[in-house]
Parts: sequence; C-alpha cells; structure tokens
Amino acid sequence: MKVGIAQINTTVGDMRGNLQKMVSAYEQLCGEGAELVVFPELVVCGYPPRDLLLKGGFVEQCLQTLEEFANGTGGIPALVGFVEENSGPEGRPFFNSVAFCHDGIWSVVSRKCLLPTYDVFDEARYFEEGDATGVLELDGRLIGVTICEDLWNQPEVVARQRYPHNPVEELMSHKVDLVVNLSASPWHIGKGIARLELLRQAAESCGAPVVYCNLVGGNDELIFDGRSLVVNPDGKVLFEGAGFLEHLSVVDLNESGEGISAETDAKDPVIQLDNVRKALVLGLRDYAYKTGFRKAVLGLSGGIDSAVTAAIAAEAFGKENVMGVSLPSEISSEHSREDARILAENLGIEYHSVGIADVVSAGEQALSGLFAGQAMDVTEENIQARARGLLLMALSNKFGALLLTTGNKSELAVGYCTLYGDMCGGLAVISDLPKCLVFDLARHLNRDGEVIPQNTFDKPPSAELRPDQKDEDSLPPYPVLDAILERYVERGESAAQIIKAGYETEVVKDIIRKVDRNEYKRKQAAPGLKVSPLAFGIGRRMPIVQRFDATNA
Amino acid sequence: MKVGIAQINTTVGDMRGNLQKMVSAYEQLCGEGAELVVFPELVVCGYPPRDLLLKGGFVEQCLQTLEEFANGTGGIPALVGFVEENSGPEGRPFFNSVAFCHDGIWSVVSRKCLLPTYDVFDEARYFEEGDATGVLELDGRLIGVTICEDLWNQPEVVARQRYPHNPVEELMSHKVDLVVNLSASPWHIGKGIARLELLRQAAESCGAPVVYCNLVGGNDELIFDGRSLVVNPDGKVLFEGAGFLEHLSVVDLNESGEGISAETDAKDPVIQLDNVRKALVLGLRDYAYKTGFRKAVLGLSGGIDSAVTAAIAAEAFGKENVMGVSLPSEISSEHSREDARILAENLGIEYHSVGIADVVSAGEQALSGLFAGQAMDVTEENIQARARGLLLMALSNKFGALLLTTGNKSELAVGYCTLYGDMCGGLAVISDLPKCLVFDLARHLNRDGEVIPQNTFDKPPSAELRPDQKDEDSLPPYPVLDAILERYVERGESAAQIIKAGYETEVVKDIIRKVDRNEYKRKQAAPGLKVSPLAFGIGRRMPIVQRFDATNA
Repeated sequence: MKVGIAQINTTVGDMRGNLQKMVSAYEQLCGEGAELVVFPELVVCGYPPRDLLLKGGFVEQCLQTLEEFANGTGGIPALVGFVEENSGPEGRPFFNSVAFCHDGIWSVVSRKCLLPTYDVFDEARYFEEGDATGVLELDGRLIGVTICEDLWNQPEVVARQRYPHNPVEELMSHKVDLVVNLSASPWHIGKGIARLELLRQAAESCGAPVVYCNLVGGNDELIFDGRSLVVNPDGKVLFEGAGFLEHLSVVDLNESGEGISAETDAKDPVIQLDNVRKALVLGLRDYAYKTGFRKAVLGLSGGIDSAVTAAIAAEAFGKENVMGVSLPSEISSEHSREDARILAENLGIEYHSVGIADVVSAGEQALSGLFAGQAMDVTEENIQARARGLLLMALSNKFGALLLTTGNKSELAVGYCTLYGDMCGGLAVISDLPKCLVFDLARHLNRDGEVIPQNTFDKPPSAELRPDQKDEDSLPPYPVLDAILERYVERGESAAQIIKAGYETEVVKDIIRKVDRNEYKRKQAAPGLKVSPLAFGIGRRMPIVQRFDATNA
Repeated sequence: MKVGIAQINTTVGDMRGNLQKMVSAYEQLCGEGAELVVFPELVVCGYPPRDLLLKGGFVEQCLQTLEEFANGTGGIPALVGFVEENSGPEGRPFFNSVAFCHDGIWSVVSRKCLLPTYDVFDEARYFEEGDATGVLELDGRLIGVTICEDLWNQPEVVARQRYPHNPVEELMSHKVDLVVNLSASPWHIGKGIARLELLRQAAESCGAPVVYCNLVGGNDELIFDGRSLVVNPDGKVLFEGAGFLEHLSVVDLNESGEGISAETDAKDPVIQLDNVRKALVLGLRDYAYKTGFRKAVLGLSGGIDSAVTAAIAAEAFGKENVMGVSLPSEISSEHSREDARILAENLGIEYHSVGIADVVSAGEQALSGLFAGQAMDVTEENIQARARGLLLMALSNKFGALLLTTGNKSELAVGYCTLYGDMCGGLAVISDLPKCLVFDLARHLNRDGEVIPQNTFDKPPSAELRPDQKDEDSLPPYPVLDAILERYVERGESAAQIIKAGYETEVVKDIIRKVDRNEYKRKQAAPGLKVSPLAFGIGRRMPIVQRFDATNA
C-alpha cells in the first residue's frame, strides 16, 4: 500500500489558505500514486486554535472548509483532522476528530481519546474525549486511526501513564494492519527520540507499520518540526519527513525500512545545534510572515545574545530586511560598538548607531526635583534600558519592522532584564536558550567562518548599565547558573534536591529567590520560541502573588 | 447543629501564614460553639496554586501543614481543603481533596469530582477526578462533602451539563442530612445570583441545608468575594457571610432562614457598583500587600480612567501612600493638568507634575537622521506615551511604589493604548471595566460629594497624543462600542450575529478587526483584576499568530 504524507505548514484560523494547501497536497500525492493521503491533526483550522474555538463562526467555518475539501476528493481517500461539534446532551463542546474524505463526501472516523492538558496543552478546555479509537476498513485492510497523544500512553515507554486508557491496546485487539497517527506535536530538543520510541512500541505491539504525519511550522511560541515518520513493526524507519520544512511524500509500505537518521539528532551535537538554528529560523519567520511583517529591527549591544538573534533574523528575513541598531550610552565600551558594527557588516544587514545619552539625561533631568537627595540605584540603569526600548520601538513603528527582543533564558529566569527596556519586542527569539546554549549556537553559526566577532565570545558578559559591570559580579558562572536553573525551572527540583546534587546552598537559594521574584517580569514578556521541554510562557503558569518559600523546600 | 464557617483570606503558597489563620479561626469558632468547622477549598496552600503544584516540595509542604493543623484539633472536627498526592499507578498527579481533621488526626473525606477546565480554571492540568463524593457520618448525621464545582452541574440550573456526572444525585441517593461545599469561587458581576440558584437547587434536591464556605481575597487577577452562604431546603438563606472581607461565624442550622441580601446585588445598581468598588479595592490591596508593596504611583491624565484608579488606590493603600503624577506634554490641555491637580487635592494624595517635553524631543532628535523625510505618524504619539512610561517606572523603582496602569477594557480591546507606554505597570486596576462602567463607577465614587472633578466627566475622552484628538474620532460612541465589545469578546458572538442585533456592518467589522489585531498588546499587558464573566487575561487564551477572518463569520 502506498500512503501519501502531507506534512504541510498551516496557519491557525486561515481556513482558506489551509484549504488551498490541502487541495494542492492531495492532488500532488494522488498524482504520485498515493492510495491514501494523511494530513496532520486539526489541519483544517491549524494547531493550536486555542480560544478561537469559542469564537462565533469559527467551528462552523472549519466544518464548511472540511466539506469543501471532501467535495473535491475522488477515489483516493484522505484522513483530515478537524474540529467536530459535540452534539451530545452533555460534555465539553467539541471533539478533536479525523474525517475520512472520499468520493466527494466525508464521515467521522476517529475522535481523539487522550487529551493532553499539561505543559503548553489545554485540550481538556475544549474537547470531550472520544470513547473509542476509530478503525477503518480500506481495500480489505484494517487501519487504526489515532490522533497525536493517543499513542503517548503506552506503559512500555512512558514513565507514568497519565490516562487510564491506552488506545494502542484497542488497536491490538482489533488486529489492525496499519496504524495511522495524525499529529500536531511541537518540537523541543530531544523530542524526536521520544516520538520514535513511542512509534516503534506501537508498531511492535500491533505488529503493523505506523504512519505518523506531523504538522510543520511556527505558531506563536510553538515550533512544529514535521519529521513525519513511517516505522515498521521491526522498528526500522521506512521514511522520515524533512525537518522544519513542508514535505509531501508517497511511502510504499511494502518496502523494508532502513535505520534512517531519526535517532541521530540527540546523539550528534552538530545536528542538534543545527536543529535549534532551523527551529528558530522557522519560528521567527512564521511568527513574522503569518502576522504580516517582512522586516525586523533589533538592538545590537556587541554581546552574544543580540549577535545570535541577528544571525537568525538575517536567515529568516534575508539580510536586506534586518536593521541592527547600536544604542550606545556613555557607559558603553568602545569595543561593544565596534563588535556590533563588525557583526552587522559580516551579516550584511543594515546598521545604525543611535546614542541614548540625551534621552537618558532628559529623563534624569525631568525627575531631578523628585529624586533630590536620593541615592543612585537600579532606577538609573533601568532608565538607560528603557531609553533604548523607546528608541527601538519608534524604529519598529516608523518602518513597520518587527522588534526582536534578544534576552536568553538564563537572564529571563533570574530577572536580569528590564521590563519595558531590553524586554521590548514582539518576539523573543532566544528566550528559551540558556546562556551556555547561546554560546554553543553562536559557535555553530561561525562554523564556516567568523560571522559573530571573536571578541563577542571572549569578553565577559555584561549588561553595561554601570561602569565595569559584569554579569558574574552578582551571578555564579553561567555553566553553574544554567545547571541550577535547569534543575529548578525545568525539572521542578526542590532546593534540597539541588543542594544535594552538589551545588552551594547559598548560591542555590539566591538563584531560587531571583527566579521566584521575577515572575511579574515574565508575565509581561514577549512570546518566546520554545526549544526546551519546559519554556517560560504558556507551558509554565506560575502565580505572581505567592509566598511559597522554595528556598526551604 | 452549629456549623462554624471560616471565610478567610489565604495567600497562595504561604503555608505558615495560612496555617496561623486556620488555627486562629478554628479556635475562635470552637469557642463560639461550633460543632463542625468548615474551611474553603485548598485552604492550606491557597487558590489557585497553578504550577506551584509541580514545584518540588510544594505538595509535601502542603501535606505537612495539614498534618500540623490536624494535630492541633480536638473533639470538634474541621473540614479542610488540601492537595492530595495521587498515589495510584496512573492518572494526573494530584487530587483536590478535603480532609476531616479530628482529635489530632486527619483522613481524606472527599475528592473533587468535577474539575473546572474553562475560563480561568485549569484543574484538569493537575488533578485527577475523584470517583465518588465523600459522605461523612457525624453524631448520627450524614454529611455530604462537596468541593466547589461539584455543585455546578445540576441539570435543573445549568444550561448545558459540562460533565457526565452530577454529584448532587449521589447525595440524594445517600439521603444526606447536610450538604457542605468548600469553595474557592472567584467573583464577577452577577456571580452571586448564579451561586444562590445552585445552592438552592442542591438544598431542595437533597432536602437538606447547604453550608457553602467560600474563600475571600485577591490572588493575581482573581478576586474571591467570600459571601459564604447557608441555604435551607425551602430556599431561604439562613446566613450570608460578609462580601470582600474575612468573616468567621457560627450558624445554627436549626434556625429558620430569612430572605437575606444575597439576591439584591444584581437588582440594585448601587449595591452592584459598590461591589465593584469593594472588589477592586480588595484585589488591588491584596496584589500589593501580598507581594510586599505598601505604596502606589500612577499617572494622572485628568481623564476618567486615571481618576477612578486613583480613588481606588487611595482607598486600598491609604491616601498618604499614593503618588499621583501629571505628565503633561505640549499637547496636554491646561484643563487636563488642572483636573489632575484637583483630583489629587480632593483625594488627599501626593501630587507632582513632571513634564515630558524634553524626553520626547531628545528621543525625536536621536532619531532625526533615520526619520528624515518620513511623515509623522503613530510613532510620534507612541514616543510621548513611552516617555511617560519611562518616567513613571523610574518613580516606581526609586520609591518602591507599585505602578498602576489605568487603561479600561474598551481601550484594551481595541488597542487604544501604547505597549510600554500607558500600558506600563504592575497591575491593571480597571482593565476589566468597559468605559461606560468606568463612568458609572466614577459617579458612584462621587455619591457623597465631588471627588472626581465634574470636568473629568464632561469633556470628551481623549488620549491627548495629537492636538484636538478625541477617542470618538476613530471609535463609535462608547455605549455602542461597549455593547459591541460585550457581544464579541464576552459572549463570543459572530459578526453576523452582532450585525443582526442591529449594529452597523462597517462599525462592527472595524471593531472586530481592531480587537483581533491587538492580541499582541494584550499578551504583554499587566495582569488585570477580573470583574466580568470574561476578562482579558488567563481566562481568554487567543493565539497571536492567526488569520481567522472574524469579520466574515
């Protein structure tokens, strides 16, 4: 049997645009000999639609679009993810469903049984659980139709079952000949390995190949990597779709699988860094293009964060569409300006320098009466950062360019950033990369020659808001900071656990205090592209007003 | 039987502080003759704990605190809401449970069966459903112990059952003598009526009184109003706890109920407005005090929004702890400054005037080279707003005062506000009040004499960012705008539905476009106090990147 995999990049809510892509993918795959075409989860409306689902007319339009697509199908069937209204007398308003489209009509073939409601997922907010996994008979073959999470509760693979029910067991009892999975599975570093393990287990349990069609593209914080897969019951990978790109392909299930590259990303650090680069480029480009921006502007400090962000932006927008701006103060070192200028030159992006001294002194002057007799403190540092924010936003407004904010995850975690200052921007490109990963990615970007100036790597990181200020004056060295942050923020370890792992008690407590105190800044942060298993943003929902003393937990 | 109702104000995560309040309430109520003491839902850790639940040590500390409380109990039992670990082999990690504490020990008596996962609620993110509602025998009486939402699925009252299961039916079959409900039910306008209806139905169905103990206090966006209730099977209200205040009271269930004031808030506009005032004062004070602020600063434009915010702040913090700042530009009218000054004088708050002209001109000067040949546009307006934001944040930083942002819901809906400008602030006090409600509340605040100057009511609303600018130049009159926004944002009506209701097609489409285009601003907005059934914030989760054409839905 030949299965056409339509790994396409949808836009949330853009039913017309998504329909066009679906029709064109269907026609191409049929033309290439597909006997069944598989689309991603909720392909009609894009994923995740979030509260658009509750907006009048949204689900109706999704249904009309499905109808229109189905009308255009011929003898070759397609499996299409869509939102189905729950017409039952009780329960949540919708199902996350798959339609079988064939000969101009459609019918519901499966409803998602396992609804992820953790991390970035909110599916129990909208959907009722399907009560059985759909099985379809096609040309004498039984096909089990699952939707994303339906495969993520296999006890052989997951540490703890989140759900009482495992749809794979159902498919085993049906003795299916093929398992299909329609997915919208967002990427993070290491996700590919987890997926492959689940697909292999499902294929082995069912004694049948698994066809996994995943969404590709960026939607807000989430980056879908595509990398659709076909896995044989013997665990061999018969097909792997392109990563971070659209990919239409017909896979003959009768061929025997090879060990293709699916596993290599977690093992090869170069591939892993390159996936981070591709993910950020895709996430940034889709955020901008899907909201109508074709240009970007960003501040260049001469430091590593803005350098990496600029390089990603140059790739995402084309160098001619990126404006880098140095915003020196009287404190800025000469080498900072020089590093920024050389970076812009290396990248070939537009470069300007706009001094902030006059805005800063006008601000201080306006407040001098009220501030008389007060000591200098963080206020004056913040005025500098906010003067830069004001000027960058003016450039963004005047030239219709998306302002990129350049902070990294370590900074955002400990609050080493100024609200309405360097935090200004429509998208935070690297806010889920710890500082050490930013350096690694920077080295990777320089792999074919110096793009980011060597001096940017060599000098100690500094916000340059006070003379001779260095990040490490008030923070431990970044490798230590990042390790503690990963344990505290991502893994949810307690202070006691982290200290037991060998970190200094006072350092751990100080970092925990800093993380907890800065929740209010993150509440007002720009959306940031998720690359880690747990990013600040919609996947981490902390109260601001709270007094849990995590330093003594 | 005499039941002690402990309507207390907890702080999320503050186990020590919450324990102290619990112990002191328990002792007082026992001293006043209670035979059973009832606390609110999740009283030990506060509500909503959100992702703190996933933080190492949090749930353990909650359990230790419960243990400590239980150790101190004597012969008079208490019902205490707490987080229970789900020790089963599968399912979500916790239960939202009630412990029966008695004679120094505790045991689980009930697990919440219905887990709200809509609007501001995310309970399915953390909790597994209880499989049966707890029933307790006490002195020969059967007591059904329910938790908040457990009473919100009664088919006689709700339009559509969200859940397949109705715990009240279970209690009916048990023939309970008393129904207890431990709640953390956030307030919004009109909520009291819905609650009373549910409690009456439960009391009638079970033929037993219902004791409803609700949390009081502000936590982030949510304001819990208390107003605990005891309702008899005949529908009479035996007891109503204070609104927006802590209240400890022993209620003798043998007395007959009276028709107390529970229903009046929706019927009497003065009480309704006064509830809004009390809610905002409580929400603001708790946000500030629970995070350590004792002072507030805000910009006074001379307009109605900042006037109302200042009046609320003066009540929440005490007039001596509020600093009002006029930040005139060259465009600001003389009467604006005068109105601001008079308001501050009437309120008795500190007042300063800080001109923004020099900061604005320094910013424009810094950009003059890059802006050469470009026409004036919204950029220049935003520079003014951002200069104000920069100066106000400097005052906040220098004096440790919480900056209050003063935008209303209508503005925030259509994007009539500047990101990093007038949107700067730690808390948005009136961001869930449509402009017309702001005016109503302002008149209410003036009920005993002019606090807000009459001229602030009389002049047409204007952002004063361009000479002679008026809000209604680009927006319909506020009563029309607010009506359309309520339909579109709160009720989720489609464009077609709103137009059908009699609003002009082009006006409706224009407003819808404005609402949808400004999602990115709301993403970075300060948290705002919720007073409506649907507020911007955690209860409304829209994608930023999306292309649903709601004008044609």
